[in-house]
Amino acid sequence: MKTLKDTYRSILKWGDVEHEETIDETMLNLLQKTFALSAAQFTEPYLPGNSPVKVDESPKLSSADIEALQHLVGPENVNSDDYSRAYHAYGKTYLDLIKLRLEIVDNPPDVVVYPRNEADIVAIVTWADQNKISLTPFGGHSSVTRGLECPRGGISLDLTRHLNQVLSVNRINSSVTVQAGMYGPAFEKYLNNYKDGYTCGHFPQSFEFSTVGGWVVTRGAGQQSTSYGKIEDMVLSIRLVSPVGIVETRDYPAASIGPDIGHLIMGSEGTYGIITAVTLKIRKYAPDQNRYFSFICKDFESAVRIMRETMQGQFGFPSMFRLSDHEETDFAFKLKGAEGSMSDHFLKLLGYQPLKRCLLYVSTVGDPDHGKLIQKKISRLARKNGAFPLGATPALKWLEQRFSSAYLRDPLMDAGIMVDTLETAATWENLPKVWQNVRAVIKARESAVAMVHISHVYENGANLYFVFMTPMVKGKEIADYCQYQNDIITAIHENGGSLSHHHGIGRMLGPWMEKEIGETGLNILKMLKKHFDPNQIMNPGGTLGLD
Amino acid sequence: MKTLKDTYRSILKWGDVEHEETIDETMLNLLQKTFALSAAQFTEPYLPGNSPVKVDESPKLSSADIEALQHLVGPENVNSDDYSRAYHAYGKTYLDLIKLRLEIVDNPPDVVVYPRNEADIVAIVTWADQNKISLTPFGGHSSVTRGLECPRGGISLDLTRHLNQVLSVNRINSSVTVQAGMYGPAFEKYLNNYKDGYTCGHFPQSFEFSTVGGWVVTRGAGQQSTSYGKIEDMVLSIRLVSPVGIVETRDYPAASIGPDIGHLIMGSEGTYGIITAVTLKIRKYAPDQNRYFSFICKDFESAVRIMRETMQGQFGFPSMFRLSDHEETDFAFKLKGAEGSMSDHFLKLLGYQPLKRCLLYVSTVGDPDHGKLIQKKISRLARKNGAFPLGATPALKWLEQRFSSAYLRDPLMDAGIMVDTLETAATWENLPKVWQNVRAVIKARESAVAMVHISHVYENGANLYFVFMTPMVKGKEIADYCQYQNDIITAIHENGGSLSHHHGIGRMLGPWMEKEIGETGLNILKMLKKHFDPNQIMNPGGTLGLD
Repeated sequence: MKTLKDTYRSILKWGDVEHEETIDETMLNLLQKTFALSAAQFTEPYLPGNSPVKVDESPKLSSADIEALQHLVGPENVNSDDYSRAYHAYGKTYLDLIKLRLEIVDNPPDVVVYPRNEADIVAIVTWADQNKISLTPFGGHSSVTRGLECPRGGISLDLTRHLNQVLSVNRINSSVTVQAGMYGPAFEKYLNNYKDGYTCGHFPQSFEFSTVGGWVVTRGAGQQSTSYGKIEDMVLSIRLVSPVGIVETRDYPAASIGPDIGHLIMGSEGTYGIITAVTLKIRKYAPDQNRYFSFICKDFESAVRIMRETMQGQFGFPSMFRLSDHEETDFAFKLKGAEGSMSDHFLKLLGYQPLKRCLLYVSTVGDPDHGKLIQKKISRLARKNGAFPLGATPALKWLEQRFSSAYLRDPLMDAGIMVDTLETAATWENLPKVWQNVRAVIKARESAVAMVHISHVYENGANLYFVFMTPMVKGKEIADYCQYQNDIITAIHENGGSLSHHHGIGRMLGPWMEKEIGETGLNILKMLKKHFDPNQIMNPGGTLGLD
Repeated sequence: MKTLKDTYRSILKWGDVEHEETIDETMLNLLQKTFALSAAQFTEPYLPGNSPVKVDESPKLSSADIEALQHLVGPENVNSDDYSRAYHAYGKTYLDLIKLRLEIVDNPPDVVVYPRNEADIVAIVTWADQNKISLTPFGGHSSVTRGLECPRGGISLDLTRHLNQVLSVNRINSSVTVQAGMYGPAFEKYLNNYKDGYTCGHFPQSFEFSTVGGWVVTRGAGQQSTSYGKIEDMVLSIRLVSPVGIVETRDYPAASIGPDIGHLIMGSEGTYGIITAVTLKIRKYAPDQNRYFSFICKDFESAVRIMRETMQGQFGFPSMFRLSDHEETDFAFKLKGAEGSMSDHFLKLLGYQPLKRCLLYVSTVGDPDHGKLIQKKISRLARKNGAFPLGATPALKWLEQRFSSAYLRDPLMDAGIMVDTLETAATWENLPKVWQNVRAVIKARESAVAMVHISHVYENGANLYFVFMTPMVKGKEIADYCQYQNDIITAIHENGGSLSHHHGIGRMLGPWMEKEIGETGLNILKMLKKHFDPNQIMNPGGTLGLD
């Protein structure tokens, strides 16, 4: 099947529009067995979204408005065709993908504007504010929290066309100043190639299709966050264009000058203004000095103990620190054809039993002696907790395919399988309870797979990342999903997990925000909103639980 | 001379009221020489503040108000005598000390209240808000930024009498929940003695006379911050009682749930509400595993390079990392009687010349192999940058007397010497310029000593701590000091240093806040103030540049 440039499918697809990812035979068999599906289900895509895009909703902006915008940024930087509008109506939330497959475009912007520079953004914000026209910033198109919809129409402000450059690198300060609309790979490549070579070290799952601005505004985390930190640990300063003016913080290494305004902007998800540029920490790029190692652990509890003791061991942190729970491990064994192999036999003999055992992947970055020490210390803790070392290969294999799982969602949904993720953070004390009880809710559904991993680890706790798969209820794809998802989110919240560790809130989790941060907490966000955006034009309609 | 319990002097003194710190002979000679002072100047204290305290300002609160407060917290927890009022009018800002020596009590509270618990605080805040009575939280009495004055009278809320307990220790999460009014030594001792032993790792210069709440509300930093972090890096959650209700954050290890409300409260210096308790990270206490080492560096520039290359070396951070500039080093040599010694001779032969050479003190905490590695790496960088190793002794000696320099201020002021500190943070690129230009402003005054050190170090920069000493202009102690201090602060700001790295803003630096964070930045703080404290009762009158 060939996708077409102007179809719904071309919008929902992850990656190259013209390439159709396929599920390999092992996975196909596993899925058929797991969900009792027929082979036929994998031949004809379910809800492929192959029609050309059509947006029913007529724009609320007048042609005079569109002309005014064309005047501000040049006509070539203003699009109001159906396809552009539909493209900018969604990110990659599961619900977005289902709607596109159902050929629904619910909340499109009226117009897409591509500002050429910060001055354009100031002009657009001023104009939109004066005319009370909604304005939603748009980056890499990969929001998984309904962060990009435009329920009040207006402008989708796409920063990727022009605001996508590194502005400066400061080698003395080990920092980079970069525009918000730059995509991950171009940014990282720039740094790798700059002089002796640098890295930002931020590799979220969405790396290929996310932008620096998106990382900051959602408080993202990369696969090596345990060493490099979440994006908020890397940000040194920010520029924000808001309806009440430009807010700029300074790149001081630390300060004691009142509340931290940068921490107000980070996580604001476009509701207060538009981040135009940020200054981030960078580190030396020396991939040949990295170390990779892996373990098989007896069970989830003992594996979590290895992580906790590492993080509290005061000998430094690994960069990647990733634990698959028993079910994700089982899936990995089956997918890699390892089940029933000699090694599998051997591992069983050693007491690492299927559906108990857990894979733990580790890497280190930075100084090689530092990496060596961390490997030695973690290996000792692993041994103490009954784990068996598996060498570098499993960790390296995981890293090789680390961005590929996101591509599988399309063919899985083609087969009528609901596949989505929810994630949280919890203290070590709470983590086993959150893991167990949220898993129980996912698994309460007949033929549901719950694969859980920990991938961002701290001294006092860690994240939990839940991947769930289950056949769609055909004809009720949306309602069924929403109910199921609601139950899982509720379980996360009620067991003391955060609403999100790094995906953000968007419109998807907005309704839980008052429960999460309390009435007094939400009132603070509301008041900040009112301050920055008195006419409520910035990414309005539910994001962060705001109006 | 014996100080009296009820004198101005007893309020201004650092440490035990009954003990008078003396300046040893070496220092005496050095000071006499440096400032061309006569020996007589050191015998009779200048402006000793020996009179009994008397507060002229009559309380603005009615006796009915006092009774209402007595009803809320019990009469034994309400003081409105002159001494209590004067004691709570000041911290340990240089200006406070001069005013007390001049027997001036400018901005006393009308009444001092000691709440018994959080419920009392809620009741007091509610009552004060309803009656529009000012309310200023009071902790360890050690503000150096005029953070405690009560220019609108009202209540000084002293948290140290009752809210001074550890509420819980969580060994799984490696965290502690502690009340805001607990002093540093009691807190640290509690942790050291708890089960296998823990430490908070927060040792500001004011450690002995500062409280946990004070640390958080001013974004303090301790002498080992390079490993343990500033207090804001240790805080996991906060409870704040504000006029609009209790705000509580959660102890998630990380989250992506909108702007970080904790970072709004940290640094708010009592202007938004009263922190009642915080949850902090703790680490294992194993002092026998710490390492100490020292170097003499050729000059300030090469020493700064050692620091920068360490922080950017990706092998882990030392805990104490402290560099004395050439003048502070010279002072240390002279004070320790090292000048002219064999070692001095030897060092000169090796090319470490007086008034060029700089002392660098280092320590490590945590895992011993980790400490060993850091020592090895720093030693290599030191050698590369021309420094000479001096072993553990100088670092240990510094640590032994690390809290003692604060005690010297009283006898120095007794000798008519102005002695104060200002501190800032700057990026590595900016740091030499700030150091040089601020020093130039200090030294532009005839017979002024400027001793500078770096003691909090980061990947992209460090702090600079300026200690300046110069004879007072007698009869014009306040005006002369204010002008001089104003010039130094202006130089820090204009050269790109932050207004403060860890002292905070208070009323002292408030007037610079708009320059520091911009009009749009200050408007955010003002709006937050209006939200939390609509009747402007919380620590009003200039703190943070707010009204």
